[in-house]
Amino acid sequence: MNEAIIEAKKSLKEGGIPIGAVLVENEEIIGRGHNRLLQKDSSILHGEMDCIENAGKLKGEDYKRCILYTTLSPCEMCSGTILLYKIPKVVMGENKTLKGPEDYLKENGVELINLDLKECKDIMKEFIKRNPEIWDAEIDRVI
Amino acid sequence: MNEAIIEAKKSLKEGGIPIGAVLVENEEIIGRGHNRLLQKDSSILHGEMDCIENAGKLKGEDYKRCILYTTLSPCEMCSGTILLYKIPKVVMGENKTLKGPEDYLKENGVELINLDLKECKDIMKEFIKRNPEIWDAEIDRVI
Repeated sequence: MNEAIIEAKKSLKEGGIPIGAVLVENEEIIGRGHNRLLQKDSSILHGEMDCIENAGKLKGEDYKRCILYTTLSPCEMCSGTILLYKIPKVVMGENKTLKGPEDYLKENGVELINLDLKECKDIMKEFIKRNPEIWDAEIDRVI
Repeated sequence: MNEAIIEAKKSLKEGGIPIGAVLVENEEIIGRGHNRLLQKDSSILHGEMDCIENAGKLKGEDYKRCILYTTLSPCEMCSGTILLYKIPKVVMGENKTLKGPEDYLKENGVELINLDLKECKDIMKEFIKRNPEIWDAEIDRVI
């Protein structure tokens, strides 16, 4: 999770939303990424999506051995991607800032662990406090 | 749907998988795209994802007025993205080649229309027949 938090901080330094993710197979990081909605003027580059894209095109058997670490609960899009590639386990930093369809993931066999980390919540709280218009504009797009 | 099929054919010409999509608001095409998994060595650029990305960052109220036309039933990832942005209506060319989580979309209030078009099925059948190894490798990644 520390590495996912490092990715979140990278995004913050770039002027982006501080959400990060890493993909781990056999205790080795094979992909890492962070939210780039602002940096790339993107609608699809959430932290988890950027991470899975950066991992490259893995075989099905590899995805099935992976754990996705993400600083925030995965949204509908990222959850769908987790299901598409049958990633069996997701460890999240928190789900207080936003909460994705966790029940749907669980119903479909994904193991979810919420570490409920103060550091992950604080980094988002601070970002939202400093950039309320940016955050509100992003939230407006999905509610 | 004709425009989505034009996108699918564009992909085919580029050596890619022939799946295309267009996003329509108030009877006007505001985004278009096609599957670029092969062209961009990507894991996330399905036709619908490419289309939504190319539409740019719309406001929430705009997504809620949109219809997404796609030549093939949306997969878990694309369905999640449809739900994230609350696109209320999806028109698909077919769902025989692959079928996404259509019940989940319907349960979440998305209107689905399947045109079951021979042209959409034939373009995929022909691609798979000509490129069985490519297709099998892509399918292996998600089963």
